[in-house]
Amino acid sequence: MSSPEILSRSPDQSRPLNSQALVIGVDYGTDSVRSVVVDAQTGQELASAVAHYRRWAQGLYCDPARNQFRQHPLDYIEGLEASVRGALAKLPPEAARRVVGIGVDTTGSTPGPVDQDGRPLALRSEFQDNPNAMFILWKDHTAVREAEEINHLARTWGGEDYTRYEGGVYSSEWFWAKILHVLRQDAAVRAAAYSWVEHCDWIPALLTGNEDPRRMKRSRCAAGHKAMWHPSWGGLPSETFLTRLDPVLAGLRGRLYEETYTSDEKAGNLTADWAKRLGLQPGIAVAVGALDAHMGAVGGEIGPGALVKIMGTSTCDVMVVDDTELGGRQIGGICGQVNGSVIPGLVGLEAGQSAYGDVYAWFKEILSWPLETVLPEVLAADGAACEEHKDYKRLQEEVEGRILERLSSEAANIPAGETGLLALDWLNGRRSPWADQTLKGAIVGLTLGTTAPKLFRALVEATAFGSKAIVDRFAAEGVEIRQVIALGGIAKRNDFVMQVNADVLNMPIKVATSDQTCALGAAMFAATAAGIYPSVAQAQAAMGSGFSKVYLPDPKNAAKYQQLYSEYLALGQALESQLRRL
Amino acid sequence: MSSPEILSRSPDQSRPLNSQALVIGVDYGTDSVRSVVVDAQTGQELASAVAHYRRWAQGLYCDPARNQFRQHPLDYIEGLEASVRGALAKLPPEAARRVVGIGVDTTGSTPGPVDQDGRPLALRSEFQDNPNAMFILWKDHTAVREAEEINHLARTWGGEDYTRYEGGVYSSEWFWAKILHVLRQDAAVRAAAYSWVEHCDWIPALLTGNEDPRRMKRSRCAAGHKAMWHPSWGGLPSETFLTRLDPVLAGLRGRLYEETYTSDEKAGNLTADWAKRLGLQPGIAVAVGALDAHMGAVGGEIGPGALVKIMGTSTCDVMVVDDTELGGRQIGGICGQVNGSVIPGLVGLEAGQSAYGDVYAWFKEILSWPLETVLPEVLAADGAACEEHKDYKRLQEEVEGRILERLSSEAANIPAGETGLLALDWLNGRRSPWADQTLKGAIVGLTLGTTAPKLFRALVEATAFGSKAIVDRFAAEGVEIRQVIALGGIAKRNDFVMQVNADVLNMPIKVATSDQTCALGAAMFAATAAGIYPSVAQAQAAMGSGFSKVYLPDPKNAAKYQQLYSEYLALGQALESQLRRL
Repeated sequence: MSSPEILSRSPDQSRPLNSQALVIGVDYGTDSVRSVVVDAQTGQELASAVAHYRRWAQGLYCDPARNQFRQHPLDYIEGLEASVRGALAKLPPEAARRVVGIGVDTTGSTPGPVDQDGRPLALRSEFQDNPNAMFILWKDHTAVREAEEINHLARTWGGEDYTRYEGGVYSSEWFWAKILHVLRQDAAVRAAAYSWVEHCDWIPALLTGNEDPRRMKRSRCAAGHKAMWHPSWGGLPSETFLTRLDPVLAGLRGRLYEETYTSDEKAGNLTADWAKRLGLQPGIAVAVGALDAHMGAVGGEIGPGALVKIMGTSTCDVMVVDDTELGGRQIGGICGQVNGSVIPGLVGLEAGQSAYGDVYAWFKEILSWPLETVLPEVLAADGAACEEHKDYKRLQEEVEGRILERLSSEAANIPAGETGLLALDWLNGRRSPWADQTLKGAIVGLTLGTTAPKLFRALVEATAFGSKAIVDRFAAEGVEIRQVIALGGIAKRNDFVMQVNADVLNMPIKVATSDQTCALGAAMFAATAAGIYPSVAQAQAAMGSGFSKVYLPDPKNAAKYQQLYSEYLALGQALESQLRRL
Repeated sequence: MSSPEILSRSPDQSRPLNSQALVIGVDYGTDSVRSVVVDAQTGQELASAVAHYRRWAQGLYCDPARNQFRQHPLDYIEGLEASVRGALAKLPPEAARRVVGIGVDTTGSTPGPVDQDGRPLALRSEFQDNPNAMFILWKDHTAVREAEEINHLARTWGGEDYTRYEGGVYSSEWFWAKILHVLRQDAAVRAAAYSWVEHCDWIPALLTGNEDPRRMKRSRCAAGHKAMWHPSWGGLPSETFLTRLDPVLAGLRGRLYEETYTSDEKAGNLTADWAKRLGLQPGIAVAVGALDAHMGAVGGEIGPGALVKIMGTSTCDVMVVDDTELGGRQIGGICGQVNGSVIPGLVGLEAGQSAYGDVYAWFKEILSWPLETVLPEVLAADGAACEEHKDYKRLQEEVEGRILERLSSEAANIPAGETGLLALDWLNGRRSPWADQTLKGAIVGLTLGTTAPKLFRALVEATAFGSKAIVDRFAAEGVEIRQVIALGGIAKRNDFVMQVNADVLNMPIKVATSDQTCALGAAMFAATAAGIYPSVAQAQAAMGSGFSKVYLPDPKNAAKYQQLYSEYLALGQALESQLRRL
């Protein structure tokens, strides 16, 4: 395997904490929330802290076998306090007084039901343990049927096809499908849910005391990409469409929103109560929220011509294009095109893969099965003979913790295209191109000589082929990709995966220096909303972290993968209809 | 899961060792040879011993990644002595003197090159480490290309289609393909190989001093099923055909054989030298050898209308039918139909699956990967802190040893057809129906909720679907199956696998009482060859072990599997051509 080129530019870690303004970027991820205190002038990341969601970590309210994933609003609140206070605690006390703005990004679409006061229902005692009263995490796929109904109706009802700016396919991961599913399922929630909020709408609303569902400043990004909001049809889909979908939705549109806002704007000012809870000054700017990938792309210095891949448990692939360049085209098979969803004034394009790191984590889980079932039994039988390993947990965790690294290093030694295997990466359905959550993964070509590292390599190649399918979709619509920028845990930590991606895409991939580009992007928005910069582009220019590595494609591997990629496409075609039936 | 019915009939273990005649059944398996001393009157198994092949156990001469599996003739010789002597040592000394016959079965097609004296080349010092001078084990798939050439030529050369009685497809696992592959590959072996012998031909020849390749008594079973021998075209394929296949084969036919023999006949009498080596009387009868599955089917009390499944690493599915019932039909897609290959006077039909238990063992290997790579590192790092586990081998082996049992018990709790998965069982190619060693396995329908027990259940279901495809092939040719009898390690030990089979086949499956039906069958042939019984059927009636269990199909599961089986067939069709390309 070739090694990535290490770029020389890196942030100036020696710069002292001076008296200039600070901003905080708050990044809500799938498992935890991270707050980063950033120098608003230089983008230097001064301190950060991560808080894991306590209830989520215990597996509460989830049912992975049914793809039900819910998060409790208290996990968000407790995590916010812990991470902001934790980050500030690492700095001198005066730092907190110099914070002039907060930006927030979250996963999404992650909607939750709220009452008339904008309070998530799960914060009320009667709903505190009801998963339907909580936030429905992006990767929850309980609403597959509802998404199908939305797609069917949008195409056949004779009115506007509201999926036009969503890539032409509405996903079960999104706002309306999830709302419809819960309202049908749960009469108590149906009765109590006055309105619904995205996670990224609710946190800034909460911090600014602007929680009235009709008045809170809703994210353009979430509304446009996930809720079929578009100015051309006056905002959200019409009442007629929604009630035809299901009368259970009647009236909800009027209790949601018409206007949306980009994140260079303020959602409001921090309330005295929250200033106290977070240890900050009251009245500072809180930017309108947005989805993590979009703020991450900004943090990763997105601009026209760049494809930014945020590579974590799933991927988001983000681009920005000038409206005139797009020439009114609606790009099919992606997750939407929304003016201002990434950088105000440009059209943000979003695509993605429903499972990426999750595919590798799944394989690790499979390989960990004997460690979690048989090993404890065997060690228990050894009894007192072994003090060190009587508590098997530590041994188990240490072994499991090393599996992916070891798999990567062994898989890297297998030549490209030599596993004899071919896989489909749709283990969590397919998001792009052409969203279809009923699809599933596959591994074919198994022989008695197939090893765990070969399986892993095939899975890594499959996720890279999935990336290429997205690049091809953009290219087919004439959206030119001049550079690829990678962000996120996988981009930072796994040379093997990144090299396979460069080889499969046959393009260099630059990796951003910052480890927390989402939070950095949120900080850029905070700085812009606080008035330090007149535009997001100027915030990017001043605060960007630059790039630490570039992975160059190996032409020999690229040629092999070109061939194997056509087999990947053929496999998908051969299996699609059967996978839907399973 | 329903439990098998335990049948009341079981062998009479209390019967004392009396003065009657004994016979020895010698069963050469893939990893070891087992010798069983049997009461020739009752079939009671008095003592047995197993000897593992020493060189094979070390992985010598094999290359699993290329599917090259070779066995050294010394492994066979040493194993024979150790197992016969080991079994006799468990009995009073006079027992050895009462042994009147030996029967031998082996795996196959497992041919090896011999010199003019019938000595396997690997027994000569210049060839002692050359894998091409050894026996080419049944599961060696290095001759895929040669098998294709044989099939192509047989169909196109304008003369006799010699594959007619081999199911219409010649396999890379068989005699001529393997010989051709080695002769092309290895000039030294080509020059020195006067003739070739099947493992089951060579052992009786060796024991009786009848090793001249032109005169040793060749097994009808091996010749008919694996070497395209048939009386209608005067034995082996013609010299013209063979030299058109490749001139390298010129003259070999004349150094092989014309006549073949059924195993109710004597190969000869035990030589004084071998009597001494084994601790037996010189001059006792040694029956003509045959393939393990065929003798196993006899040991399992095969008769017309019964399908006998020998379920181990692979399966053999054996039937016997009256020639008149068959009405001259040649059954396509199986491994051959040979008059006398199982029971003299009846046509033996053989089919099978190239990997069965091997599929489960493969999955165990995959799950064991962290135990073999990461666990030793972690335990080594624990150093002196833990005396008990510093030697990780024992812990590793104990955990690995329990994996399949635990998988089976967890998989048994998943309802039929509820894994969401579908697999193809062709991890070692497909033997029946329609042999094709270029096919491979597949698992489709993967989601992030797919667990190791679900994967295992899908693999077990796939192997059962593979069994059903064979049953359907017989049925399509009008061969009526009135009962299913299961033998072998899996049949005896894994209730879960057997119940899935009964549900998928939608037929009761009886399991033979004997744990070693192949050796018992060999003993029946020994008793017949020694003249104790006038026919094999009479030996079966007297010596059969009966049945210990019956698995009854659950009608609800059977209905579900009927549906899933059609998906299995569809999946195979969708993937066949792509699997060949991988």
